[in-house]
Amino acid sequence: MVTDRINDFLRATRSNEPFVVVDLDVVRDNFNRLSRALPESRVFYAVKANPAPEILALLAKLGSSFDAASVPEIEMVLAAGATADRISFGNTIKKERDVARAYELGVRMFAVDCPEEVDKIARVAPRSRVFCRILTNGAGAEWPLSRKFGCTPDMAVSVMRHAFDSGLEAYGVSFHVGSQQPDTGAWDVALEDAARVFRALANEGINLKMVNMGGGFPARYLKDVPSSQDYGKAIFGALRRHFGNRLPETIIEPGRGLVGDAGVIRAEVVLVSRKSEDPDAERWVFLDIGKFGGLAETMDEAIRYPIRTPHDGERTTPCVIAGPTCDSADVLYEKTPYHLPISLTIGDEVLIEATGAYTTTYAANGFNGFAPLKSYVI
Amino acid sequence: MVTDRINDFLRATRSNEPFVVVDLDVVRDNFNRLSRALPESRVFYAVKANPAPEILALLAKLGSSFDAASVPEIEMVLAAGATADRISFGNTIKKERDVARAYELGVRMFAVDCPEEVDKIARVAPRSRVFCRILTNGAGAEWPLSRKFGCTPDMAVSVMRHAFDSGLEAYGVSFHVGSQQPDTGAWDVALEDAARVFRALANEGINLKMVNMGGGFPARYLKDVPSSQDYGKAIFGALRRHFGNRLPETIIEPGRGLVGDAGVIRAEVVLVSRKSEDPDAERWVFLDIGKFGGLAETMDEAIRYPIRTPHDGERTTPCVIAGPTCDSADVLYEKTPYHLPISLTIGDEVLIEATGAYTTTYAANGFNGFAPLKSYVI
Repeated sequence: MVTDRINDFLRATRSNEPFVVVDLDVVRDNFNRLSRALPESRVFYAVKANPAPEILALLAKLGSSFDAASVPEIEMVLAAGATADRISFGNTIKKERDVARAYELGVRMFAVDCPEEVDKIARVAPRSRVFCRILTNGAGAEWPLSRKFGCTPDMAVSVMRHAFDSGLEAYGVSFHVGSQQPDTGAWDVALEDAARVFRALANEGINLKMVNMGGGFPARYLKDVPSSQDYGKAIFGALRRHFGNRLPETIIEPGRGLVGDAGVIRAEVVLVSRKSEDPDAERWVFLDIGKFGGLAETMDEAIRYPIRTPHDGERTTPCVIAGPTCDSADVLYEKTPYHLPISLTIGDEVLIEATGAYTTTYAANGFNGFAPLKSYVI
Repeated sequence: MVTDRINDFLRATRSNEPFVVVDLDVVRDNFNRLSRALPESRVFYAVKANPAPEILALLAKLGSSFDAASVPEIEMVLAAGATADRISFGNTIKKERDVARAYELGVRMFAVDCPEEVDKIARVAPRSRVFCRILTNGAGAEWPLSRKFGCTPDMAVSVMRHAFDSGLEAYGVSFHVGSQQPDTGAWDVALEDAARVFRALANEGINLKMVNMGGGFPARYLKDVPSSQDYGKAIFGALRRHFGNRLPETIIEPGRGLVGDAGVIRAEVVLVSRKSEDPDAERWVFLDIGKFGGLAETMDEAIRYPIRTPHDGERTTPCVIAGPTCDSADVLYEKTPYHLPISLTIGDEVLIEATGAYTTTYAANGFNGFAPLKSYVI
């Protein structure tokens, strides 16, 4: 979304390199809209989506909680003014010394998906709350999750029993339906599984309290996506269906959904060329940003960002779009070429929209000598 | 290759984070071996493979030239003590102001693959040498190159004619058979194409002088690779076959071939777990380094690094190997699991060999709050 504030900023800003600019007003709107759509759920912002201090400070002020993937992320959240009781250490893969450090910093909520991880927490973060991530299939998501995180619901019952027996608070269950999930029904299957884990443990006298419904709330890229209200309704309906009158506390962990459409990258056309003299040969458009400079999510052409040019409205032609590095993998869109104006030329500035999430932190640390993506928050 | 020097270093070094250590003696040996195998070729080290200042300084001292992808890489090479006449600006995608800056720094050799790029160089780097990259198919390479760089040989004739007409020195032709190319015959097809471009231009009175044979010299990962001598022989044979007695000057641009097997990463096992209670369920081994921490070349499981554990020789089981981030794409090897010792456990240190190239610079800039890969050069 190129807001007026972003437009003003772009007009006033000269830069030799590509940069991203994030509009905090959009982040605020997204937070408020999602909070209204799911009024009973606590929002834990997924810090990894964009850990810019200004974003963390705004969300801390708005009352958000935070999902942190590492000790440095926990420290960033604390530095932004949130208290430790609003932080979940949501990575299921943690070094024991990092669990200990998080505990020292006041964090008391941890994700797990196996007994080995429970043991680490029991040893160095006694009496903390733990929740167990269960596997869902993520079908339908544009950025599908693999089986990397979570265990089967059956195993989750054992893991939570083990947590209980180890003196921890067996707090709940989490899942993730896949990032950028457009199917509002995807939560239904996962909530059914979660409810099954709740019941199995209740039969043993272990009462879970919380369901962490993860992220998956999409940013608007090229396609229209359902509104926050649609998500809210679908999710609330599924909760009712599977938990009846004993609704659990719920948590959501939006990242992309809060900051994705708040950011715009301005890049420059470095070269427009063809590979042969055949007049039908494909046009290649090379930008000064690519897979290694912040657009890693174009991997497998998964995320298709809207691209604006100074010539929009003029006649277009299909173009392959690639980045500026000497790496042949640094091609953004080739299988499904973009239609871009024929008049697009070397030196033109283009805007890549909905790039507020997973861009600055995905940027490589100087690959080909190019500096990491510059970031402004306004 | 875990040399004695690397072993000594590892024994003496405590670290809470993963790191790579590169042995300069191995780099020196690789440089000398390749120089002997292709005594008539000038070596241009591909800086992007590993721009550590110590590596650049060693190669500058050994008489190497350098293939730079950007102005910052040119500046690093100059800082390491090489003169500008030993630098090629080998990226075919360059901003005109970067060409101008390179020219200002003394660089007089530039890669092109289209007339638009020739025009930039003619405007701001007059009378420089240019060479045109031609497309090859890269079949057989483990890290195949796409069509991103180069043009057809027919178009290369036009591009070089245009360079000549623009007052530039139409210097030669380049190609790249694909990184980590194990087929020594792959150079044959490309050299045949190059010779055709030479002849077509000679008929117009434009005499090219140089063939840049790119990189592709493999590092030894899991499979055995042909020796430098085998490469040298095959390439020299192909040159003779296609150029007869009028052998051109030749250039090679090894990156991985000089530094790949000189580096070793030491990482830590963060977690070993399963996803279900089924005793046949796959074992997952999570390390504190993954796709975003330096092992990006495991993308599509293209490069299979040798992994050493403290339990080598004991009974093994197939394992999925994944990185430490909250990103489901951060799985290193899943389609083809690794056989690792059953006794491998949380806290064990593992060595990932042949990681001297394309690791430090591929590392993301703090994704999930994890610092970029630490690097030591000894």
